[in-house]
Amino acid sequence: MQHTPISFRNDYSEGAHPLVLEALARDSLKQEQGYGDDSASARASKLILESCERPDAQVHFVSGGTQANLVASAALLQPYESIIAAASGHICIHESGAIEATGHKVHELPHSQGKITAAQVEAIVSMHADEHMVRPRMVFISHSTELGTLYSRHDLEALAAVCTKHDLLLYVDGARMGSALASTRNDLSLADIARLADAFYIGGTKNGALFGEAFVLCKPDRSPYFRNHLKQRGALLAKSRALGAQFEALFTGGLFLSLAEQANTTAMLLADGIRSRGFSFAYEPMTNQIFPTFPKQLVGRLQKEFAFYIWDSPDADHDTIRLVTSWATPESSVQAFLDALVV
Amino acid sequence: MQHTPISFRNDYSEGAHPLVLEALARDSLKQEQGYGDDSASARASKLILESCERPDAQVHFVSGGTQANLVASAALLQPYESIIAAASGHICIHESGAIEATGHKVHELPHSQGKITAAQVEAIVSMHADEHMVRPRMVFISHSTELGTLYSRHDLEALAAVCTKHDLLLYVDGARMGSALASTRNDLSLADIARLADAFYIGGTKNGALFGEAFVLCKPDRSPYFRNHLKQRGALLAKSRALGAQFEALFTGGLFLSLAEQANTTAMLLADGIRSRGFSFAYEPMTNQIFPTFPKQLVGRLQKEFAFYIWDSPDADHDTIRLVTSWATPESSVQAFLDALVV
Amino acid sequence: MQHTPISFRNDYSEGAHPLVLEALARDSLKQEQGYGDDSASARASKLILESCERPDAQVHFVSGGTQANLVASAALLQPYESIIAAASGHICIHESGAIEATGHKVHELPHSQGKITAAQVEAIVSMHADEHMVRPRMVFISHSTELGTLYSRHDLEALAAVCTKHDLLLYVDGARMGSALASTRNDLSLADIARLADAFYIGGTKNGALFGEAFVLCKPDRSPYFRNHLKQRGALLAKSRALGAQFEALFTGGLFLSLAEQANTTAMLLADGIRSRGFSFAYEPMTNQIFPTFPKQLVGRLQKEFAFYIWDSPDADHDTIRLVTSWATPESSVQAFLDALVV
Amino acid sequence: MQHTPISFRNDYSEGAHPLVLEALARDSLKQEQGYGDDSASARASKLILESCERPDAQVHFVSGGTQANLVASAALLQPYESIIAAASGHICIHESGAIEATGHKVHELPHSQGKITAAQVEAIVSMHADEHMVRPRMVFISHSTELGTLYSRHDLEALAAVCTKHDLLLYVDGARMGSALASTRNDLSLADIARLADAFYIGGTKNGALFGEAFVLCKPDRSPYFRNHLKQRGALLAKSRALGAQFEALFTGGLFLSLAEQANTTAMLLADGIRSRGFSFAYEPMTNQIFPTFPKQLVGRLQKEFAFYIWDSPDADHDTIRLVTSWATPESSVQAFLDALVV
Repeated sequence: MQHTPISFRNDYSEGAHPLVLEALARDSLKQEQGYGDDSASARASKLILESCERPDAQVHFVSGGTQANLVASAALLQPYESIIAAASGHICIHESGAIEATGHKVHELPHSQGKITAAQVEAIVSMHADEHMVRPRMVFISHSTELGTLYSRHDLEALAAVCTKHDLLLYVDGARMGSALASTRNDLSLADIARLADAFYIGGTKNGALFGEAFVLCKPDRSPYFRNHLKQRGALLAKSRALGAQFEALFTGGLFLSLAEQANTTAMLLADGIRSRGFSFAYEPMTNQIFPTFPKQLVGRLQKEFAFYIWDSPDADHDTIRLVTSWATPESSVQAFLDALVV
Repeated sequence: MQHTPISFRNDYSEGAHPLVLEALARDSLKQEQGYGDDSASARASKLILESCERPDAQVHFVSGGTQANLVASAALLQPYESIIAAASGHICIHESGAIEATGHKVHELPHSQGKITAAQVEAIVSMHADEHMVRPRMVFISHSTELGTLYSRHDLEALAAVCTKHDLLLYVDGARMGSALASTRNDLSLADIARLADAFYIGGTKNGALFGEAFVLCKPDRSPYFRNHLKQRGALLAKSRALGAQFEALFTGGLFLSLAEQANTTAMLLADGIRSRGFSFAYEPMTNQIFPTFPKQLVGRLQKEFAFYIWDSPDADHDTIRLVTSWATPESSVQAFLDALVV
Repeated sequence: MQHTPISFRNDYSEGAHPLVLEALARDSLKQEQGYGDDSASARASKLILESCERPDAQVHFVSGGTQANLVASAALLQPYESIIAAASGHICIHESGAIEATGHKVHELPHSQGKITAAQVEAIVSMHADEHMVRPRMVFISHSTELGTLYSRHDLEALAAVCTKHDLLLYVDGARMGSALASTRNDLSLADIARLADAFYIGGTKNGALFGEAFVLCKPDRSPYFRNHLKQRGALLAKSRALGAQFEALFTGGLFLSLAEQANTTAMLLADGIRSRGFSFAYEPMTNQIFPTFPKQLVGRLQKEFAFYIWDSPDADHDTIRLVTSWATPESSVQAFLDALVV
Repeated sequence: MQHTPISFRNDYSEGAHPLVLEALARDSLKQEQGYGDDSASARASKLILESCERPDAQVHFVSGGTQANLVASAALLQPYESIIAAASGHICIHESGAIEATGHKVHELPHSQGKITAAQVEAIVSMHADEHMVRPRMVFISHSTELGTLYSRHDLEALAAVCTKHDLLLYVDGARMGSALASTRNDLSLADIARLADAFYIGGTKNGALFGEAFVLCKPDRSPYFRNHLKQRGALLAKSRALGAQFEALFTGGLFLSLAEQANTTAMLLADGIRSRGFSFAYEPMTNQIFPTFPKQLVGRLQKEFAFYIWDSPDADHDTIRLVTSWATPESSVQAFLDALVV
């Protein structure tokens, strides 16, 4: 009989949380408006904007993160404007050129722990001085980052300051915003982000939803026809109630944060166990993605029982792997992994 | 107390059918691969390709119709190639320029009952003869059409023949494929369409699903990197199981067809009642969208109790309106509408 | 020995006027700045803006008409904005989808004598009311039109008024602006056009230059980074002096107008001769393009001695052909053509 | 009286060579076909293909280098395909995002002396393995490079081999192909390049022409509708005779090579003088662009008499500047510069 390996590949291996599924099924026969004008989306928007302390902002629900990022690029930039991002950023690697397909260049900067700094942004801006070059206009960061790390409030304020100085837009990819907000190492609130960024999105897919991301346009007058952009990019869902209902569930009773806390706690348990067994990490564990380094031989053995990605190889004898937990990862999976580390 | 009007505005006013919702919730904690590689998508693809009698074709699930159409345009055309469509086609009006945003021109042809003919296609092709002009490459039709009408097998074979003759691609927007297949006036099977078209999609959103369309690539070697296109356009869903599960439910036990039959039957009841009260139609009622013409005064009165779109105004005293039914429209709504026609 | 037919195919069959060639060769060893910052371009811009009575406008020289049109589309429109044009317009047929390749839809309107009206524009605007549709933003006209006809001052003022009313941009393709301004039937000055339009270009290629068009941005603050757009579209010429020198020659001593007058006079001679021999025209002859209708048999005979395009076929026995003259067309060519009409 | 500084800013400060100007003026009244079908373009194409020893290839003349590069990107790549280039490459910096505006990503690699290696290409290809990522498809190099250096035959054969292995296209930006071919350090013939590359262009603008580049499509069946792409991007010149005539002049009697030799010889004279005065170079002088490093104070003094770009600053006290010579740079300018180096 075939044995299914336990997967630490990502945080979207399971379906949705029961409360989200329940919300999807509720009032199904009630007739609603479509394309974002339904009552569930209205209620969810209100809840999100309250968390953001930004009643003047707008929420637009879309089905996935790449979609959110490409709409931001298309809607907020002029053709000659470019995006500054960490080379480890999602838009640089894992979106099959989605940003460039909207016509925009991405400056890929060397990162430190998945992050870029205000000084790096300043340097790129000052290098692009005439009409033969693109004009850098948007700073793209991810919080938590693709390497599981966090921007501090100090980091984000510095980035926001350089953006203000050069009239750049600050955009935050929040595919894993939940894991960031729920981290014990985090000092940024949703309200901080909504105050400092021009636009960002809060990821549902990787934190309990079946699908869906909440795009927050902090300064709606930057893009008065944002819904046209959504439609043009295929991002307006007819039965938008399906998005609204999920986010209403997530932002009711603190579900969104508690699911992220659960994922983080499990990841820290895993990290502590790995560290206590004498292994180190390529990036400091802070959220639900951790990157331990193991001897290749051990990695080969682990692959027989667990599914995960090999991230890179620091030397000929070692691999750094990525382990991701979700709200649904049982402690037994963590224990099984830790047990497998012992020879 | 506020009275909510009964809506005949569209076929996506309600949520999903109970069996679809049940499928969405099933095995939620089971870990699955993402981005189309889950087991539910595999099972749903198999069921759909069996209905199509095309085991060699590919199915890719996407979240909406505009997304399906724009990916088709991006993936199947070279930059200088264009699309031929009826001026009443969805891509010409209601997609906020999604096709042009992928770089392609649409030739908008005068339609007859929402349809275009092989002779019209032939004429456009022969007009575009040199490198100063685009090269027409794809014929875009909708079945059922945006006006609720149907292509006959004879129509489609003639279009397919002119496409073969000039090496054009035949593409069918099947947002309302269910209502077409289930119509008593239809003589085209899914297998016919899969044999004659190069690509098409089967709409879930408007026929019982919460969201989702099944894109069928009849000749996969036309686009060997189709999944790259999907990713680039933001159309790959991480938890693709959500799409697979819905289509598995729809293509099990004949649910897809029976829901469409239900919507059509209700529409015909409405149409018969309207006709028997002495009113006529702008387009022959065949599926779940009907277009009766009423005196403006009556339309004004109806608007107080019912929600619907005014389509156009054939003369100063009359409006043609669009009435759409779904699998969830109760007979009581039809009766209420017919009652309201009596002065 | 092979006989070269006399060509009435177009107004770019010959090279440049001697005074233009002389300007191209002048001061060749003098070092100049490039990319538009040379002294010849500065002098030419000044001369053009004086003719336009718009010292506050900007001139940008580009190498061809399609380039001018596609840069206008890219620079002046947001992604969801569209262009309204006559179906006979150059951008609709003869630019191989250049406008759509910048991501924008063109609404192709039925034309009357190559022209569209303010009422037609009004109708298109009122039809595009929500975010599922593009937003019409630019009215594109050609003066003289692709059918050799002219907008009157009254026509243009009406179009400008509807543009102002709906915040649309008025753009004039002036590939044959010279033939328009020099026509005896014209009542529009360059200053009128510069006052009423948001942007337009003055064609050099078809009126004595070797290549080059002068793009006039009437309201530069509509596109403060226009030069970035030019560069991005490959439209900034390194040795921009080549463009500046030609336009300086054309706008010195009235050369531009006198060359166009010469072409028009020749065309009128041809038109009068054709009419006096009993033939009629599909479009009223006004400029250097005329469209006589002949029996097909006569057309076949003419093709042996003359090169021209068959435009269309009003009935089974007749063809409408296009005859174009230039500043370099000798009277002997006209006489030869008229002689050939006699059986 | 104002003193005009001697410019070493670039190789397009002067106009065209007298023989080129003469060719532009020749047979000006002779009627010719347009858009590439003229007799001068045919003769020039034949001459170029003879130099390339590739009678089966195609030549297409365009007006500038950015235009050539963006058409190559649009015509030779599918939407999900990307370009690999040195970070110092023209497309990475000085084209205002022209490549990205056609929808394609550029991987910017660290360069050594302006060059990239086969091993770097191999590494990028192996990193891009699934449909979430772009597929690298074209290797873009410049010969001579933007830093005045050269690929050796060995370098190019290694790049071509890795391209063949992974089905990549090899593209050479030859804005300064003349200076490369004429360098005493060069071991690559035009025939070598035409044998190893899939497409490349030979720059006229920077080597004696008024404007114009000859795009060589080595394998025309890679892009059977290349002229449609040219038209769509605004790159087809109506009076294409102006491009053909210039290249006919350049490729007659060895003018092209002798002009480049002249520029290189002048640059070497300058380089030798600078070196003999004790200064060093950031990049090895090989062609008509040299990059000496001077104390900042000296640079400040030089700027009063000469025009040039400051390239970068290796330390707080020094600047590396770029000096460019052309076929028209007089020896007296070199001498003046060398004289100014003496305190």
